[in-house]
Amino acid sequence: MLKGEMIISNRNYVFNLVCFVLIVSGGPAHGRRLLSKGRPAPNNAAPFARWLVSQNSWGVLSTIADDLGGAPFGNVVSFSDGLPDHGIGIPYFYLTTLDPTARYALKDHRSSFTISEYPLGTCGQTDPENPTCSKITLTGKLNEVDAKSEEAATAKKYLFTKHTEMKDWPADHDFQVFKLDIEEIFLINYFGGPKPLTVGQYLGAGKDDLTEISENKLDPTFI
Amino acid sequence: MLKGEMIISNRNYVFNLVCFVLIVSGGPAHGRRLLSKGRPAPNNAAPFARWLVSQNSWGVLSTIADDLGGAPFGNVVSFSDGLPDHGIGIPYFYLTTLDPTARYALKDHRSSFTISEYPLGTCGQTDPENPTCSKITLTGKLNEVDAKSEEAATAKKYLFTKHTEMKDWPADHDFQVFKLDIEEIFLINYFGGPKPLTVGQYLGAGKDDLTEISENKLDPTFI
Repeated sequence: MLKGEMIISNRNYVFNLVCFVLIVSGGPAHGRRLLSKGRPAPNNAAPFARWLVSQNSWGVLSTIADDLGGAPFGNVVSFSDGLPDHGIGIPYFYLTTLDPTARYALKDHRSSFTISEYPLGTCGQTDPENPTCSKITLTGKLNEVDAKSEEAATAKKYLFTKHTEMKDWPADHDFQVFKLDIEEIFLINYFGGPKPLTVGQYLGAGKDDLTEISENKLDPTFI
Repeated sequence: MLKGEMIISNRNYVFNLVCFVLIVSGGPAHGRRLLSKGRPAPNNAAPFARWLVSQNSWGVLSTIADDLGGAPFGNVVSFSDGLPDHGIGIPYFYLTTLDPTARYALKDHRSSFTISEYPLGTCGQTDPENPTCSKITLTGKLNEVDAKSEEAATAKKYLFTKHTEMKDWPADHDFQVFKLDIEEIFLINYFGGPKPLTVGQYLGAGKDDLTEISENKLDPTFI
């Protein structure tokens, strides 16, 4: 099981933590410039995950390609989880079935959505695969949102605010709102393996938590 | 089958092409600044795909998560397909089984690797999901390269040149070279749906093709 493996992985990672820090970073004394004031401390997993999702505008949405032997098919997509600096943690997408991802999702809802901190510019010279350059994979079910629902209207507001050109995309391409119903969270934002984080903790990290941590609880090693 | 669906999608896309161009871009007369001189013309699919892969240093590698109900699990990874400006088209990775992606791949080789043009900066203000901001998904099998082979030594050179910190990553994490054996290519780099592109065409696009197109055949709408 993934959780069991993660615990073992955590032990291995922690065991090698000092070694990795010293070799890769030259020790914490080197420090790195924190470009984003809002970056929560890595040990505050839920607010950190919510920050990473809310700050990004795109990622890779993976579905099962039934016409490619059941291969996992990743596709670059835009998304929004809320108005700027007011993310709710749930990624919404604006997809058309002219594109394989939406077609695959309608046949098999299993999917994941993956986001990297690297394009935000807050990783500096750190390699995108280095665990201190954070990344998150939200795994769950990709579902179409009822086009006539209040949720769809709200999601469109979220999407069109962050992606202004979307509202003018061609009507006959039949773009629809999709959402990821999150079941598992894989977050790496420091040495030591994936951060334990439940969906409840993630969705429960409110605005107050984010604000408080943004302002007062920055990890000193990242300042 | 995907190819059949792509043909239908192509027709739909082409049918809507003028509309989409006019609505989204305000027509070709608006133009957009081309930030990268080396960006091949979008209609030269093979050199364009090779350019997109060689210019990037990271992407999302999707595998099948057997412990998450067979969900497609995308993960941010670094890669290299060759020395700078001398990519060979095959993405090599440096992965550890402390990370789920390598473990999944060793159980089930089906995978895909997805790259976006957006972080290169050559999309300007265009949305990451707009088809003119290119993206590629290489689908195939993710295989470990024999650690004692000449290919592994060459791949390490490719990887360590583009990702200098990798050579200092902790030895006891047992990083190994993996490669994607490509079977299908999904390239979007303009309106009109995915570009038809075989693996043979992609791998056969040599340095001469890339150079010639880089210098002399830029799409005028992108200059």
